[in-house]
Amino acid sequence: MHIDRPLRSLRRAIVVIAVLSVGLPLTSSAQVTTRKPPTRVPKEPARLPVPLGPAKYVKEAGTMWTFDAPPLDYWKQTYGFTPDSAWLNHVRLASVRLPGCSASFVSARGLVLTNHHCARACVASASPADTNYNTTGFVAATLADERKCSTLYVDQLQSISDVTQQIRGAVTAKTADAQVQQRDSAINRVQTACQTSTHLRCEVVTLYQGGMYSLYRYQRYADVRLVMVPEEEAAFFGGDPDNFTYPRYDLDMALLRVYQNDSPMVVTDYLKWSKSGAREGDLVFVTGNPGSTGRLLTLAQMEYLRDVQYPFTLAAFDRTIAVLNTLSAQSAENKRTYENLIFNIENSKKAITGYRAGLLDTTIMARKAAFERDLRARVDADPALRPKYGSAWTEIANAEKQLTAMAAQSNYYGFSFNPPFGSQLLNWAGALVRLPAQSALPDAKRLPQYRADGLARIRQSVLVDQPIDSTTERMELTSFLKAVQQGLPPNDPYRAVVLGVRAPEDVAASLLSGTRLASLAVRQALLDGGKALVDTSTDPMVVLARKIAPIADQTQAAQARLDDIISASTDKVGQALFAVYNTKLPPDATFTLRITDGVVKGYAYNGTIAPYKTTFYGMFGHATAFDDKPPFHLPDRWMQQRAKMDLTTPLDFVSTNDIIGGNSGSPVINRDGELVGLIFDGNIESLPNRFIFTDDVARSVSVSSRAIIEALRNVYESTRLAEELDGK
Amino acid sequence: MHIDRPLRSLRRAIVVIAVLSVGLPLTSSAQVTTRKPPTRVPKEPARLPVPLGPAKYVKEAGTMWTFDAPPLDYWKQTYGFTPDSAWLNHVRLASVRLPGCSASFVSARGLVLTNHHCARACVASASPADTNYNTTGFVAATLADERKCSTLYVDQLQSISDVTQQIRGAVTAKTADAQVQQRDSAINRVQTACQTSTHLRCEVVTLYQGGMYSLYRYQRYADVRLVMVPEEEAAFFGGDPDNFTYPRYDLDMALLRVYQNDSPMVVTDYLKWSKSGAREGDLVFVTGNPGSTGRLLTLAQMEYLRDVQYPFTLAAFDRTIAVLNTLSAQSAENKRTYENLIFNIENSKKAITGYRAGLLDTTIMARKAAFERDLRARVDADPALRPKYGSAWTEIANAEKQLTAMAAQSNYYGFSFNPPFGSQLLNWAGALVRLPAQSALPDAKRLPQYRADGLARIRQSVLVDQPIDSTTERMELTSFLKAVQQGLPPNDPYRAVVLGVRAPEDVAASLLSGTRLASLAVRQALLDGGKALVDTSTDPMVVLARKIAPIADQTQAAQARLDDIISASTDKVGQALFAVYNTKLPPDATFTLRITDGVVKGYAYNGTIAPYKTTFYGMFGHATAFDDKPPFHLPDRWMQQRAKMDLTTPLDFVSTNDIIGGNSGSPVINRDGELVGLIFDGNIESLPNRFIFTDDVARSVSVSSRAIIEALRNVYESTRLAEELDGK
Repeated sequence: MHIDRPLRSLRRAIVVIAVLSVGLPLTSSAQVTTRKPPTRVPKEPARLPVPLGPAKYVKEAGTMWTFDAPPLDYWKQTYGFTPDSAWLNHVRLASVRLPGCSASFVSARGLVLTNHHCARACVASASPADTNYNTTGFVAATLADERKCSTLYVDQLQSISDVTQQIRGAVTAKTADAQVQQRDSAINRVQTACQTSTHLRCEVVTLYQGGMYSLYRYQRYADVRLVMVPEEEAAFFGGDPDNFTYPRYDLDMALLRVYQNDSPMVVTDYLKWSKSGAREGDLVFVTGNPGSTGRLLTLAQMEYLRDVQYPFTLAAFDRTIAVLNTLSAQSAENKRTYENLIFNIENSKKAITGYRAGLLDTTIMARKAAFERDLRARVDADPALRPKYGSAWTEIANAEKQLTAMAAQSNYYGFSFNPPFGSQLLNWAGALVRLPAQSALPDAKRLPQYRADGLARIRQSVLVDQPIDSTTERMELTSFLKAVQQGLPPNDPYRAVVLGVRAPEDVAASLLSGTRLASLAVRQALLDGGKALVDTSTDPMVVLARKIAPIADQTQAAQARLDDIISASTDKVGQALFAVYNTKLPPDATFTLRITDGVVKGYAYNGTIAPYKTTFYGMFGHATAFDDKPPFHLPDRWMQQRAKMDLTTPLDFVSTNDIIGGNSGSPVINRDGELVGLIFDGNIESLPNRFIFTDDVARSVSVSSRAIIEALRNVYESTRLAEELDGK
Repeated sequence: MHIDRPLRSLRRAIVVIAVLSVGLPLTSSAQVTTRKPPTRVPKEPARLPVPLGPAKYVKEAGTMWTFDAPPLDYWKQTYGFTPDSAWLNHVRLASVRLPGCSASFVSARGLVLTNHHCARACVASASPADTNYNTTGFVAATLADERKCSTLYVDQLQSISDVTQQIRGAVTAKTADAQVQQRDSAINRVQTACQTSTHLRCEVVTLYQGGMYSLYRYQRYADVRLVMVPEEEAAFFGGDPDNFTYPRYDLDMALLRVYQNDSPMVVTDYLKWSKSGAREGDLVFVTGNPGSTGRLLTLAQMEYLRDVQYPFTLAAFDRTIAVLNTLSAQSAENKRTYENLIFNIENSKKAITGYRAGLLDTTIMARKAAFERDLRARVDADPALRPKYGSAWTEIANAEKQLTAMAAQSNYYGFSFNPPFGSQLLNWAGALVRLPAQSALPDAKRLPQYRADGLARIRQSVLVDQPIDSTTERMELTSFLKAVQQGLPPNDPYRAVVLGVRAPEDVAASLLSGTRLASLAVRQALLDGGKALVDTSTDPMVVLARKIAPIADQTQAAQARLDDIISASTDKVGQALFAVYNTKLPPDATFTLRITDGVVKGYAYNGTIAPYKTTFYGMFGHATAFDDKPPFHLPDRWMQQRAKMDLTTPLDFVSTNDIIGGNSGSPVINRDGELVGLIFDGNIESLPNRFIFTDDVARSVSVSSRAIIEALRNVYESTRLAEELDGK
């Protein structure tokens, strides 16, 4: 679940970000892409017997509740737990948001607890030039030793109010374009007015795809200092292989402190530390900022992901891994260079394979189908809803059907894959050819990636001063061309232009021997020369890009039109859901504060039972089982302090709380509002929860509060911090 | 993998044995049942291009090599390992067979190493009246303290010779019945002659279903004494849940000693103890006695198991578990009474689900199909083989098709299920009705279960003095009747006789209120009274059994005829395989000594990597993760000695060796012929190996030689034994 590991070059960064934007959990606030959808037209739903009865909570929607609509009846019924508003306000104020992550106040003097992997940038900025505290770990011996982060801030949610009517009331136009503009202006007005009057950071959050608009007001704290962080080998023990899995043995924590006027901030609403920690069967809450879920996607959209988009993405991963493995086999240096990247891609594969596993699970999909059938029946049975929303599912299904029909074209037509694996030089050539044409169009008429600040970003990417490794380039280009050869029929116009009857290896060789695009000066000249120069260039890569562009542009434009239809209809589905259920069902994740209930609980796995927790004994067991080889190597400090530790102390534990990317660093809280744990991952069985929530075997994984105290006292020997957390 | 746990009553014993005879790995020497097979007629195999080339080793057949046909070329090619005959003879003589298990000589003074779960009967017989060393553990402080077992003997394989011609030559008759008789007489003659001349125990082993007959000569050692056994909590740590799984933390070992003339036997061929143990990547051999595999089953047979037999069996398990769970919920005593039985059945479910998983795996089945296609093509291409064997596959497929058509009848017609869940009283009634009729028939005309000593066994089962719990009886009878109601159409003659239009609950209630069969005296009288008394009995259970018998007998007889056809054709398939491949492919397991090669190696599991070994740290980690609750509770002795132990010592490890039930207790041997481990289980991924061998993720699980020394020295404080094993 670590997506922010150091990157070797911008080129690699682009690749990795592209991989990760597909949807790794935690630390990403990106919306799940609803761009493309389905392979089969969903059958017309069978009508339920009328009357349908009142709409009730269904588990498939998960438990990511907003703080202005806590399900008090549901909690009372399920757990006999009835928190008062003081309890809810307290845990809300104690829970904070970091860029891409979650965290909590854990002492009266401003200590903030989050994950090691959420504090990486902060830790790096606080490290001296010759070392990296992310790797070595860091413990401030005194207050004076706490080190300022340049990159981090902490947002605390002060209040929420419903502004749906204000936003809706402003939308009076007849055309969709004008409606969007009115809506966006209204949102801006509300935000600005709020900021002016409160001096808080104000954000209008779109819930239920527009079913509800809420105004969230945050206090931002910008003076954040690094207090303590373990070594990466302890925080991310087990590395990429163990990522997304459980049993787990990670101390994935970091302690920061908020300062005001150069003194530790005085905090009233902080989470007290639980002495007993999480016990099996305990009710626990997670308060944090889940980034994005796709639970309102329709069956048709899910089927498209399952049958078209994910298989293409996984095939692209496999091609890239094959290239990288070949490169790695060529030298020890290559092996070192590509090792992390391969692991990262393997991890993305793991994630997508996990999402897809849920979509392939007939039981899970049957639950989704029943839920959708019920919702559609309720919409159809309501004369006020049916005209507004009734056709949305069919509209999506039809668009998905068309996208499926053009899936091979969407996948191959262009200059590389999406995510952008393939030839960097061909990518640049494509950008050089498209930039003059796209610049000349009004924003709304451009290809989606050239809209808004996209044009400037793409222009910049052409001017990055990045050396090209010719072996890598040849292999990636050849791999792409081979995929084109296999994926498109011989009479396909794109294939005809790119390959003709020539072998992929030959085409790649002649393109690469002739092109001069590896030179930044050449690219700069072409960019400066504009359309006139690009149109007359004889650089073979540019010549090819000129032939590709019209074919690819047409497909991309057609795809964009279908995506817009799907996007509009998806909004209708969300609004229909809200109209039927109101806040009885939580909205999809929006990287805003939610509270999710769950139970500390083991589960069936591997033919046996996964224990509800692990201990430090298990951590040493895991390390010794792998002969202490990385990523199963423990830091020297841990080996030295071993005899002083109580190895029976719980280390990590699992619970049924509903979390996803963005929840990293969230506190786990017991009935008494005490902190018992720190979310840092989900097990592999939880990946399908992105689309349909289940809790039979899906679990969130946390660091135990007891492990943190034990490590502070006996590994890091920081009585100061242990006692501060203990409230002494 | 423990099938010999203490049983509460004979009734329960029958149930459990029936469950287990379906095919749990290890400690069972039963043949895989080939009784019933397939649901679809296999398609006519596509013909391969001719010429086929020489028949070569294929991995699907596994690596259970006989000692008279070691694959020296294959080993040389694969591992660069070329053992001489001295090496092979040495490890053969050091490897021994126990009833249902395997073992090895591990000292010059007769020490024998096997599993705790293989020595249970021995340990029980050596325990004093007031204690059970199986539970408490036992360490003989001196030679004089070693305690005689009454039940165990050790068989050492002295030599093997091929007697195929002797057996084949004796078969001259034209009819199948006469041929079988001639073959069996020839086998008897060979065995008797061998025993008379050598005074060894001689067994003719049928390999490749009659493709080859080998004479195995054993020296038997009957004075076996208990030397050391750990507590069950250490040997079977993790209990039934962890059974068939890995990572694992079990010290599943026992040390016995062979005596001659009241002194430790002097042994020349014993396995020296490896100092280093098994390391990742090491080539290792397992020498032991695998009980039974079904790799020569045809596709049609496998499909029948997958689609008909296993689903019925699993449904029967589920029904029984439901009954037992209901009973368990009624009282704490019931919970205690049924806990182990439920676990046992869950374990059988786990095993069968695992076997079936392989059959459901399209990749694995495609390999099987390719193998079968190749074999059939070779048979068809050979004018000598085609007339003898060419039609066998089609004959089996046709018979399986007929069995499938009558599957519901075979499953339900009778007095209970096979395996015999259901009403004990109805079972007795059935036996009372059938016994007079079956006794009157010649052996060959009887129902299969009444043939040979079956008749006497069934008679005895009726006379067991066993109390009937009326609640249990009512629930099991009702559960059976409900299954009949659901599984058979309303116009079915059996259902008509048993239920008519009445509800299962009512039928059960009226049967149970009227019957007097719970009384042993009543059953004895009916048995003594024979047909006359049974025919006139008005006991409602007997009346019902009289109606069932003719319907059930007819179906069972039809099924027996089809089974005979399948059995004869399966023999032809085995002989065809041997004719084509000779000993290039190892034969199916026969509970005789085999040597299998493999590599010590982790594998992909749970989204990450399973380590090639576990350590004592992990054992304490596993115990503490489960809060030391049984079956994850460690013995007090272990907790007390913890500080003295080197917890980094390897405990268990995995390798790719090809093992199955009967291999329990087999030594794991390195290139130098040293003992590095002790087989005790397979991982859950290895269950499909029963039918088709793969080693991607399937692993055998062993206790490390180093764990044994560490435990002897620092847990059990037996320097005497540790040094004897160390060769000091």
